[in-house]
Amino acid sequence: MMDQILENRRIAAIAGRFLRPPHRLNRLHESDAELITLDPGFDRVLAITTDALSEEISSGLYVEPYRAGWMLAMSNLSDLAAVGAEPLGLVVTITCAPEPGEGFLEGLADGISAACGTIGTYVLGGDTNQGGRTFLSGCAVGLVPKAAVLTRKGVLPGDKVYLSGPAGLGGVFALLRLTEPARPIPPSFYVPVARIREGISLRGIASACMDTSDGVLHTLDTLMRLNGVRFILDSDWPKILHPEALKVCSARDIPAWLSLASVHGEFELCFTIPPDREEALLMAARQAGWSPIPVGEAVPGTGVGIRSGERVVDLDTARIRNMADSAASDPRRYVAELMTLAREAGI
Amino acid sequence: MMDQILENRRIAAIAGRFLRPPHRLNRLHESDAELITLDPGFDRVLAITTDALSEEISSGLYVEPYRAGWMLAMSNLSDLAAVGAEPLGLVVTITCAPEPGEGFLEGLADGISAACGTIGTYVLGGDTNQGGRTFLSGCAVGLVPKAAVLTRKGVLPGDKVYLSGPAGLGGVFALLRLTEPARPIPPSFYVPVARIREGISLRGIASACMDTSDGVLHTLDTLMRLNGVRFILDSDWPKILHPEALKVCSARDIPAWLSLASVHGEFELCFTIPPDREEALLMAARQAGWSPIPVGEAVPGTGVGIRSGERVVDLDTARIRNMADSAASDPRRYVAELMTLAREAGI
Repeated sequence: MMDQILENRRIAAIAGRFLRPPHRLNRLHESDAELITLDPGFDRVLAITTDALSEEISSGLYVEPYRAGWMLAMSNLSDLAAVGAEPLGLVVTITCAPEPGEGFLEGLADGISAACGTIGTYVLGGDTNQGGRTFLSGCAVGLVPKAAVLTRKGVLPGDKVYLSGPAGLGGVFALLRLTEPARPIPPSFYVPVARIREGISLRGIASACMDTSDGVLHTLDTLMRLNGVRFILDSDWPKILHPEALKVCSARDIPAWLSLASVHGEFELCFTIPPDREEALLMAARQAGWSPIPVGEAVPGTGVGIRSGERVVDLDTARIRNMADSAASDPRRYVAELMTLAREAGI
Repeated sequence: MMDQILENRRIAAIAGRFLRPPHRLNRLHESDAELITLDPGFDRVLAITTDALSEEISSGLYVEPYRAGWMLAMSNLSDLAAVGAEPLGLVVTITCAPEPGEGFLEGLADGISAACGTIGTYVLGGDTNQGGRTFLSGCAVGLVPKAAVLTRKGVLPGDKVYLSGPAGLGGVFALLRLTEPARPIPPSFYVPVARIREGISLRGIASACMDTSDGVLHTLDTLMRLNGVRFILDSDWPKILHPEALKVCSARDIPAWLSLASVHGEFELCFTIPPDREEALLMAARQAGWSPIPVGEAVPGTGVGIRSGERVVDLDTARIRNMADSAASDPRRYVAELMTLAREAGI
């Protein structure tokens, strides 16, 4: 099931050559961060994750060094959020040209620093190198109570699907940046914040959790494959999608739900809740000061569909995900392919 | 003192924009890995470090993917060794071309896997990306008893300087690869192994420790600047240098000690021992099955010198380190500059 996705096949080709760590609680693909037992007598496990930026910079998606730094930190911290961890901090490797340009390193560092400050965490250390191109990599670590780790596994038919916030902004940001590069975008348009607080309030409540760093449909596709369930997404777009995503799509005659199909997401948490814990979710979220958005449900079967009036339109999410392999190199073709898919699906 | 080194200035320009993590035991530059308190009630601290490979691959230093993978793992694990940590494992990010070439990913993964197996540790997880060039980044984590962390600080005049094994092989490997690229080098010529076991036996015994990933002279230069001492290196080269380093230098009329001046090192540990703990060192090393090599001593003052008969020749290690900025882009010039320096110093 997982190997219908090109990226998963690449990962499996590599990971198959590694021994499984006996002290890792999760299996491959089963959580956003790796969950490592430190000591039988210590009641918390280490969450560790790594994420790099390179094509995002060379493709023109992240133009400003400040944004690149912010995204480097947030993309790593978001994986910690999805396992319910409290961050200890992150380490970064920065490779850039010997003369990276006036203010480049400073902007990058300020973006990383601001992201850490927003979350209340720290840069623990790092490494700088010279290279022909800018390449950034981060690794975030955190702690999570052993008894309350969140993983991508555990969804049962009947569970409700929620998002930690409105979606689609990552998709339309990429659309604007990559297909209309001359158009200025206000810096505040797309400023994802890792949902650490939200992840912590999901401990012991969510049956599964994953961030939407690769977009909501990619997330649902992965959860669907890992859990052997079918997801049905509501189509109440004004409730599910960010107002700016609706606006951008509407002005371009793009079906709004396609903003969920982009491989560039918004770093919300997508999680499932057994029906008997919906009350607990609402209480925990209210206490922590955020509002879960119900977006659909898990049912028996397989696949991902969108409710459209009385019927459910099935989406070929494997095709959508494999299309994304062309996103950075040819964004216009990627958008055209998504539009074709939407026309074929009739939504 | 530290800012006479170009690389340190680059690091400081970035790190100065980050808040100091209150739970980090070490300050900037003061240890090979960051030392992070996990919990006041837990008797161990997390050691975390990150190291990337990019120029090493594009410059032709690491040609085979297996070697690149091996070095990625070992360079990260070596930083754990230098703080006396026991590894929990590492995470890796692999960025490479969409079609990286037959067997590239497999070779890379096998190199990483073999390095981990040699150390008895694991790949915990990772991230793959597509990009125009190969970029590899790793992050290793380990645990070390809070009471026994090794750092780069703590050298006093009178301390003896030791290496965990013979040096110079990293330097001559780089010399051969970069200045005589057509010459075949047997795969077994340069296969550094992170000195984890050695680092563990130095707990509570060494006054300071640092790995020689950037070469012995760079290591001594850093320890000298951090501790405000002067180092005098013995010149008993057959004892200090690897036999292959001696052979390669002798065949090319290069002073053998220059193999210590290369920025490409051999990943031994360089550490200092108070005179009254030399006995304890020898006992601990014997029990762990390795032999420390005495290479010099710390004395009052500043700088790094080499004992040459009755006199001590002072080395301009800041100049040597700053020269290294040209190593990857113009290796022949780098070697010529080192030769000039050796002639000027008269050794």
